[in-house]
Amino acid sequence: MVGTILDKIDTPEDVKKLPKKELKNLAKEIREFLVDATSKTGGHLAPNLGVVELTIALHRVFSTTSDKIVWDVGHQSYVHKILTGRKNEFNALRQLDGLSGFPKTAESKHDHFNTGHSSTSISAALGMALSRDLKGDSNNVVAVIGDGAMTGGMAFEALNHCGHKQNTDLTVVLNDNEMSIGENVGGLSSYLSRVRTDPKYTKTKEDVQYLLKKVPAIGGTLYKSLDRVKDSVKYMMVAGLLFEELGFTYIGPIDGHDFYKLEEVLQQAKKTSGPVLVHVITKKGKGFLPAEKTPDKFHGVAPFDKETGLPLKKKQKSFTDGFSEALCDLAQEDDKIVAISAAMVSGTGLSKFANKFPQRFYDVGIAEQHAVTMAAGLAADGQKPIFAVYSTFLQRGYDQVLHDVCLQNLPVVFAIDRAGIVGADGETHQGVFDISFLSHIPNMKIIAPRDDKELKDSLFTAFSLNCPVAIRYPKANLPEVNDRDKEYKKMAVGKGKPLAEGDDIVIVSSGVTTNSCLKVVDMLKQEGIDATLLHLPFIKPLDEDMLYRHIDSESKVLIVEEHTAIGGLASLITNLLSSKGIKADINHAALPDEFIPQGTRSEILKRYGLSCDDIFAKAKKIVTKDYSYENKKKIGSITG
Amino acid sequence: MVGTILDKIDTPEDVKKLPKKELKNLAKEIREFLVDATSKTGGHLAPNLGVVELTIALHRVFSTTSDKIVWDVGHQSYVHKILTGRKNEFNALRQLDGLSGFPKTAESKHDHFNTGHSSTSISAALGMALSRDLKGDSNNVVAVIGDGAMTGGMAFEALNHCGHKQNTDLTVVLNDNEMSIGENVGGLSSYLSRVRTDPKYTKTKEDVQYLLKKVPAIGGTLYKSLDRVKDSVKYMMVAGLLFEELGFTYIGPIDGHDFYKLEEVLQQAKKTSGPVLVHVITKKGKGFLPAEKTPDKFHGVAPFDKETGLPLKKKQKSFTDGFSEALCDLAQEDDKIVAISAAMVSGTGLSKFANKFPQRFYDVGIAEQHAVTMAAGLAADGQKPIFAVYSTFLQRGYDQVLHDVCLQNLPVVFAIDRAGIVGADGETHQGVFDISFLSHIPNMKIIAPRDDKELKDSLFTAFSLNCPVAIRYPKANLPEVNDRDKEYKKMAVGKGKPLAEGDDIVIVSSGVTTNSCLKVVDMLKQEGIDATLLHLPFIKPLDEDMLYRHIDSESKVLIVEEHTAIGGLASLITNLLSSKGIKADINHAALPDEFIPQGTRSEILKRYGLSCDDIFAKAKKIVTKDYSYENKKKIGSITG
Repeated sequence: MVGTILDKIDTPEDVKKLPKKELKNLAKEIREFLVDATSKTGGHLAPNLGVVELTIALHRVFSTTSDKIVWDVGHQSYVHKILTGRKNEFNALRQLDGLSGFPKTAESKHDHFNTGHSSTSISAALGMALSRDLKGDSNNVVAVIGDGAMTGGMAFEALNHCGHKQNTDLTVVLNDNEMSIGENVGGLSSYLSRVRTDPKYTKTKEDVQYLLKKVPAIGGTLYKSLDRVKDSVKYMMVAGLLFEELGFTYIGPIDGHDFYKLEEVLQQAKKTSGPVLVHVITKKGKGFLPAEKTPDKFHGVAPFDKETGLPLKKKQKSFTDGFSEALCDLAQEDDKIVAISAAMVSGTGLSKFANKFPQRFYDVGIAEQHAVTMAAGLAADGQKPIFAVYSTFLQRGYDQVLHDVCLQNLPVVFAIDRAGIVGADGETHQGVFDISFLSHIPNMKIIAPRDDKELKDSLFTAFSLNCPVAIRYPKANLPEVNDRDKEYKKMAVGKGKPLAEGDDIVIVSSGVTTNSCLKVVDMLKQEGIDATLLHLPFIKPLDEDMLYRHIDSESKVLIVEEHTAIGGLASLITNLLSSKGIKADINHAALPDEFIPQGTRSEILKRYGLSCDDIFAKAKKIVTKDYSYENKKKIGSITG
Repeated sequence: MVGTILDKIDTPEDVKKLPKKELKNLAKEIREFLVDATSKTGGHLAPNLGVVELTIALHRVFSTTSDKIVWDVGHQSYVHKILTGRKNEFNALRQLDGLSGFPKTAESKHDHFNTGHSSTSISAALGMALSRDLKGDSNNVVAVIGDGAMTGGMAFEALNHCGHKQNTDLTVVLNDNEMSIGENVGGLSSYLSRVRTDPKYTKTKEDVQYLLKKVPAIGGTLYKSLDRVKDSVKYMMVAGLLFEELGFTYIGPIDGHDFYKLEEVLQQAKKTSGPVLVHVITKKGKGFLPAEKTPDKFHGVAPFDKETGLPLKKKQKSFTDGFSEALCDLAQEDDKIVAISAAMVSGTGLSKFANKFPQRFYDVGIAEQHAVTMAAGLAADGQKPIFAVYSTFLQRGYDQVLHDVCLQNLPVVFAIDRAGIVGADGETHQGVFDISFLSHIPNMKIIAPRDDKELKDSLFTAFSLNCPVAIRYPKANLPEVNDRDKEYKKMAVGKGKPLAEGDDIVIVSSGVTTNSCLKVVDMLKQEGIDATLLHLPFIKPLDEDMLYRHIDSESKVLIVEEHTAIGGLASLITNLLSSKGIKADINHAALPDEFIPQGTRSEILKRYGLSCDDIFAKAKKIVTKDYSYENKKKIGSITG
């Protein structure tokens, strides 16, 4: 699979030694390698196809044993991994205990900072550059950031601060592929588009000639329009002015697939003092036709057919799909429903809504903070906004959820997708903290539906409550209910449902975990153990009455959740029971106090004691007293 | 106190009716009113002195019964409050149950969005503008934001999105007073400074003449420097270009104390389609000499002498002061210690460090996200960064703490000031969530010192641990310990201290709360009740051994904390004991699941059952069995 040139590349030194004429073939081989590898494992294909030449050029100009490159978001670091001795590990890319899909300092000395979330690279790189200066070292520091990630507020915070540090050498490579994950939005995007497309923007010596030819003409029509004069001059002369105004030396825009130009400008950046921004234009998906045509579909892929680009497995209906349908149904009936995405239109299932109700749909860019507070503004004026977002990315909007939405008790609905184990994206993307960071916020309600019916009803209920509501659901297939009643129904707030009744143990759970627990109840029954199963669609408020009715100081209780144990559902229930003086034997099956690595959902659930077999075994031990307090520690009590 | 013109102003309509010639006197009377009022109650004086004319002009041009003004941060809304019928409530400004120091929709129909944290206004205003357009209404929406708040990333996210919404009418008033709370920093600040100070930046018709005069001259020296040409043209023509590039129509800069110009440009903005940015230059502290001279000292003031500007009460040594000293001591010995502030140099006690170690000090602007990740970058390169920040503002960096610091287990120290009840700033600023949003993050350690000695030792310990550590301490006087041993000592990680031993009840607490509990132990002793008091400097990890040693299933336990009950210390301990099968009678004295209003620390602690008397009464009830489970609810079990 590895080509004849790539075959010989084991370290970045090998890349440096290659004659320039072989670079084009190296790039070709890398692209073949990328397509081949991700067609088997899945992964972020299109972003990596776009940065092949850029990554090669970076490794020819810089030395990542001492120079530091921070890859923003990091899903475009595959080529870097290939060139830094990890090409043979791609067969286990994004798999349990395999190569990460993101930079990992633990993986290689050539990785200097872990990334995963967007827009962090300039901050991290500035920190490293300031540190270098304190130490009197002379290494280079480079942040590679996409135009999409540049719309994230913290990237601007970092740009602004860099502009202040005129004595700090730092290179920001703006990898401008005209889109991030979906189509890019915003004033910055329009600006970059002007810079890219207007040939006059390119800063060469001819510009001066151009200016001189142009200006007298303008003088002739002096009174026509001040604005036109301004625009002409501006467009002629000031490519990158926005960055220059912020204190950067701007170099570009240049073709990011042209090795000669790339090496030239990177060398130039290396020599320039102070903060430098190199503007590189690349094509996402380059070199693989299906990905070039629909780069958004090849941003992140499941295993696919290399010839057609079509996925190998048919996708089953997911929670995301169910959400997508339900939202459109409800929005059809209620024109106050408006939807917001932070650059994840397709991933969060909002495409359908966006197509059907374009006037009521807003994609704000990679800008979760703004998304949340804009939703608060919409709600304050009488709309019913819903922000569909991955659990891990809502972390970015925590303060805004608390301060702008909940403090004013505004009716914003949060559709929290990818809650729980997310699989291959691993530790930076696990949605296992949202109950902890939302449940302590006053006025917030949290619902975790377990199937199609509950998903629909929870959405319907959320829009009717006139207060902040979070609905969390996993990256998982959606259990469909053969419900004759297709109507959307308003759920009783804070009401749970006993799904089984038995005297030996009380199992409590929420969301899809309940479906595993239902199986466990059957498994226990086979062994003669009668379990009660309490399902809590509402994590906040809890169904106190139901819990008090089924649990007393003699009860053996097992609370199951796909979430960190600290501050999660089990924690909330344990505190509630304790406050009521109910001294039951309470056990948790939850995730431990550690970051959860990549792996399929079922692999990870198994590893952390959350498979049906594990839950069953734990429940049985609790009932049969094998599970005394003394040996609790061994199999983990708080942590599963 | 109210002047003769102000006397007649009860609604914004009265402001509109005033003849223009009386406006100057109105402004003068409002300034006298502000100085007089805040000299008695304390409050944000300087920001309000700066926006007197701007606020009057806004109310003359817009009608806040239908038009919506969002005041960013909101501490500059006093003039607005004076003009909208609340002037007689200023005697209780920022006091328990009194007038808020921030906009509050519950207070007046003229307040449209609550603020408190920085940089939210454009997002909220855009939400309101989009909603207006959906409804087909025609009201105006205005965001008033300072140049400091503009450095916050979410303001940029919102600007970027606005630039995309060319059909959405929205006015952003940039209140540029050349500083936020302290001196402003960053590329944006330099940019604004150039716009302000260079007369050529002003956009008038003369500019065209100027251009025509200038360009031929440049033509004459064609080959000298492309850059100089560019700069000349740029400086001549493109005031506000940065905002125009993002899609805004830029108007300004204008004198924000000139009524005529203000009304003119605001009217112009009102008529202009799409997003408009009005750049207004104001002087913070204007009209009160002590505040004009040192506006940072008069940003937020305690009651002061109107003649001299000096505070009426001598300030006692605070936790902030103790932190400031200790940090300088330690930094003297360890040159890897570097400190970061997000525009709160003085408030967080970093001024001393900044003066002593300017090379190792970074003020990043109002940019908590960047601050945290830059700290991670510094730590990744071997430095020992400390980010000193208020508890409530660290909420903005939650994702970065989790994703950039803790995931890589980087040794960043968080000095979390204003943890607990903050007093007059009220619900937007209470530091009562940090244990909840930090304790569930893997790798994080949390320390809460109770006095000078523990504060010093916790800081020393934090720098030695080579992992993320948060030290939380309140806005309170610092108990000083007469410790003969002045050395800094490394604390045993996760070790607590029994401060009293008795058989009747076990009281557990952390931080300054322990000092109240020590008094309670004495009060209980007077009544013949012997209490154990377990002090936990470490909230994470907990001292499991100590807790197990002192608490068994027969114990009566009271856990006391100045923090929300959900996810706080009491929650962590309850879960720990439960996991060990210790079925004690556990009671919490903590804050309830609601936003905590303004009031002095002692008033609020009293209101929520956390005064010594309250804790004593609760402990006594628990011991004397009056406090049976049946009547727990009455005095509140979970919630204090």
